[in-house]
Amino acid sequence: MNETKIVTLEKPKLKNPICIVGLPGIGNIGRIAIGYAVQQLKAKKFAELYSPYFFPFVMIHDDSIHTLRNEFYYFKDKKRDIIFIIGDCQSYDPKGHHEVAGKILEFLKSYGCKDVITIGGFGTGKVNDHPSVYGAATDKDMIELFKKNGVNFDVSGKITTIVGASGLIAGLSGLYGMKSVCLLGETSGYPIITDPNAAEAVLGVLTKALNLKLDLKKLDEKVKSMHDFIKKLEVLQQQATEQMTAGKKKDDLKYIG
Amino acid sequence: MNETKIVTLEKPKLKNPICIVGLPGIGNIGRIAIGYAVQQLKAKKFAELYSPYFFPFVMIHDDSIHTLRNEFYYFKDKKRDIIFIIGDCQSYDPKGHHEVAGKILEFLKSYGCKDVITIGGFGTGKVNDHPSVYGAATDKDMIELFKKNGVNFDVSGKITTIVGASGLIAGLSGLYGMKSVCLLGETSGYPIITDPNAAEAVLGVLTKALNLKLDLKKLDEKVKSMHDFIKKLEVLQQQATEQMTAGKKKDDLKYIG
Amino acid sequence: MNETKIVTLEKPKLKNPICIVGLPGIGNIGRIAIGYAVQQLKAKKFAELYSPYFFPFVMIHDDSIHTLRNEFYYFKDKKRDIIFIIGDCQSYDPKGHHEVAGKILEFLKSYGCKDVITIGGFGTGKVNDHPSVYGAATDKDMIELFKKNGVNFDVSGKITTIVGASGLIAGLSGLYGMKSVCLLGETSGYPIITDPNAAEAVLGVLTKALNLKLDLKKLDEKVKSMHDFIKKLEVLQQQATEQMTAGKKKDDLKYIG
Amino acid sequence: MNETKIVTLEKPKLKNPICIVGLPGIGNIGRIAIGYAVQQLKAKKFAELYSPYFFPFVMIHDDSIHTLRNEFYYFKDKKRDIIFIIGDCQSYDPKGHHEVAGKILEFLKSYGCKDVITIGGFGTGKVNDHPSVYGAATDKDMIELFKKNGVNFDVSGKITTIVGASGLIAGLSGLYGMKSVCLLGETSGYPIITDPNAAEAVLGVLTKALNLKLDLKKLDEKVKSMHDFIKKLEVLQQQATEQMTAGKKKDDLKYIG
Repeated sequence: MNETKIVTLEKPKLKNPICIVGLPGIGNIGRIAIGYAVQQLKAKKFAELYSPYFFPFVMIHDDSIHTLRNEFYYFKDKKRDIIFIIGDCQSYDPKGHHEVAGKILEFLKSYGCKDVITIGGFGTGKVNDHPSVYGAATDKDMIELFKKNGVNFDVSGKITTIVGASGLIAGLSGLYGMKSVCLLGETSGYPIITDPNAAEAVLGVLTKALNLKLDLKKLDEKVKSMHDFIKKLEVLQQQATEQMTAGKKKDDLKYIG
Repeated sequence: MNETKIVTLEKPKLKNPICIVGLPGIGNIGRIAIGYAVQQLKAKKFAELYSPYFFPFVMIHDDSIHTLRNEFYYFKDKKRDIIFIIGDCQSYDPKGHHEVAGKILEFLKSYGCKDVITIGGFGTGKVNDHPSVYGAATDKDMIELFKKNGVNFDVSGKITTIVGASGLIAGLSGLYGMKSVCLLGETSGYPIITDPNAAEAVLGVLTKALNLKLDLKKLDEKVKSMHDFIKKLEVLQQQATEQMTAGKKKDDLKYIG
Repeated sequence: MNETKIVTLEKPKLKNPICIVGLPGIGNIGRIAIGYAVQQLKAKKFAELYSPYFFPFVMIHDDSIHTLRNEFYYFKDKKRDIIFIIGDCQSYDPKGHHEVAGKILEFLKSYGCKDVITIGGFGTGKVNDHPSVYGAATDKDMIELFKKNGVNFDVSGKITTIVGASGLIAGLSGLYGMKSVCLLGETSGYPIITDPNAAEAVLGVLTKALNLKLDLKKLDEKVKSMHDFIKKLEVLQQQATEQMTAGKKKDDLKYIG
Repeated sequence: MNETKIVTLEKPKLKNPICIVGLPGIGNIGRIAIGYAVQQLKAKKFAELYSPYFFPFVMIHDDSIHTLRNEFYYFKDKKRDIIFIIGDCQSYDPKGHHEVAGKILEFLKSYGCKDVITIGGFGTGKVNDHPSVYGAATDKDMIELFKKNGVNFDVSGKITTIVGASGLIAGLSGLYGMKSVCLLGETSGYPIITDPNAAEAVLGVLTKALNLKLDLKKLDEKVKSMHDFIKKLEVLQQQATEQMTAGKKKDDLKYIG
């Protein structure tokens, strides 16, 4: 496998689909929020993405081999259908970030998707019990829709970059004929912890803007049940990143199975 | 050579082949065990794999140039034929691990292979004279077969990841229509030493599960004869890894011939 | 996106075009000089270049998502038309530098371009209020033209290399049937600051050599208005470069949105 | 340019050509020896190789832009013609080493070349006024030819690896239907200095084995005239390697022109 690969499990017919991307990142806001939405809405998995730019290990989960991947789900709604993207990880390097983002956008385009919402976090270094949701878009229509649902687009002084998948999928969407907005939940950002409060704030905005029938009461419960898996992933990726960039020490080879 | 390349020496007709992968890794368990099986069963080499993601040097062995490679052997058995994969090294980087794993799986698929067993080690930090064999699989059938032959699949609390070839070949096998199990011999894991005990434990499981006619008595002898070559390889790859990741020092260029 | 990509917005017919490349670099001389020329001459954008070898983040600018890119502009002049290339960044790695340079040269060739001028800086470590413009070329014609307009081509003792886009686009131009000169404005080079003086010196040479109707009076004003954006870009890329090369620290993952 | 590229200047008809590769490396033995042979024999350049895996800078040499490259020369001899390969540099990374070696071998194959000799150095850490020439081969015929001309093939205890181009071109030659020998001149190896003594020893062997009419008297003179250029190249590549691997410091961006 020398290129990012999307394996299609089903080819649903989707009506003017909008895509929402929730991948791991700061506070794991996107991962939790969209993972919860997928579960509550009983969205159906229809494709999986594997990449040579994901970490070179498999995880053991529930006594089984779990291969790192991103997953595509669809949910049939009244007006517009929704494609959800969730996953275990982002790419480990810059070239990979671009390749994965491009493959995702290409795939979405093939389903006639025109609008993409990416979810991320904005680390402020402070704890805020009532986190705001910030936004940046590639297009005015997107701003309209979310501004009236409480998203703060006055970000120039506060946020300078959006790193990784949430940034690049949004930033490159125009090359594939799509519009995009990135919603960033306010979170402390330090230390790396899962932030259900920020996830809830983002879900609040999404349910209003997209008119989703989503009960947020079970979010805490879901976060707890996802916690172990996500925590494990984080630790592993952090270790792998450190090893790959800060130099392997002598003993590291012993971890290669 | 800008892509991993498999050179075919012979195209054997194989009957429902099962593949067993034994590449270098922790304790060199897979490399020793499968190297021994290849030799004892007089399996026949039919292909070689070369990769731009292997280290950029050749070894001097027996006064000759030895190019780093993985090798494919076949053994014709009563019920099912076996493909063995052994080799000098794994890839030096994450992208390469994926490319090599993908090429191997693609190649196996072309021979109608449906089942892959990868061999690795599980470093516990302790010496155990009667090492266990742990397992993780992508499929229940595989678990059945090996559980009844003494493999411990109760691993969730103990093992979090399987890094490199044994993990990825197993983890990506599903993308190529195959089922997979990874067998991990219990080994001290520190310092990096060849562990014939763990290799014997793994071979014990394999001979029972696959009904192989394999005399394990000469294993120690074989390990001794392989020792120098394997030791040299280990030291070299460790040096190369350190140089590539921890930063080259001024004098390093002098090693480039 | 696993390859550098040029998106064409318009396909102008250009008469024997000459290309001038002004990308960020030491003193940002090329970026400022050519950015100013583009604005003053009201050159028209006709293509954009995106690369997987650009940093994996988007910037927030004017409350919007700004995707890192290089841009192609054309200006119709009496004798020869001009293609200007400006942009936010250069590649973050050596392979990327080559890929981007190659794509640019291929693209220029498709417009019948035969001559390329790249703009860079030559850091002397000293402040000079009347900076010289140095040059190095692949061809004697180029030297003739610029020598008589004040460029110093006596550089062998002073300059040993030209790193990155200005060097490679010039150095590889011959492979695409083009001639090239690199003009280097003398600048202090330390600390990394935008140097309008050197940019003015380079523009002085260009206007004379190419007979451009370019009023340099508003350069200072332009530099001020560009300052914030350029400064932000510099800081970000410096941070990103440090993270990617000097090893990520534990907390770095929190910056991934 | 996202792949190594060979530009052909002429397509000579060559009679059973043998190739001799002399690229920079320890003691610059190959570079000097073959550079000298090319000059003395008035061999003719017929192709140039450029690679995205060469360092991302151009050199200033004789007030001109010099693009890093490898070069192919041919020399028509009585029995067999010779292809010489010399160049400014080797690849900066492992993948690149493999790609460049593969492209070279593919190119040689297209000219019907069956035998390749690569030249390198073997750093002993000691100065020896009468350096030996060591050898390692992929084939017995090669050993025969050079053993009787003074090359020591008894190397297993002394040399463990041959790193980079001399090793890989030899080691991968079999994949392209060729035989290969690597000749290593004994050299102190520290500090990185050009070693004309070792180069002369290697040339002595080559002239005898291949029956070349080569006057070695002017070698010292040639080495002196090449010295500045080679020294400059070495320093630059060392700096570039350090920057790329050991982490860029804050000020490094200023060197990007």
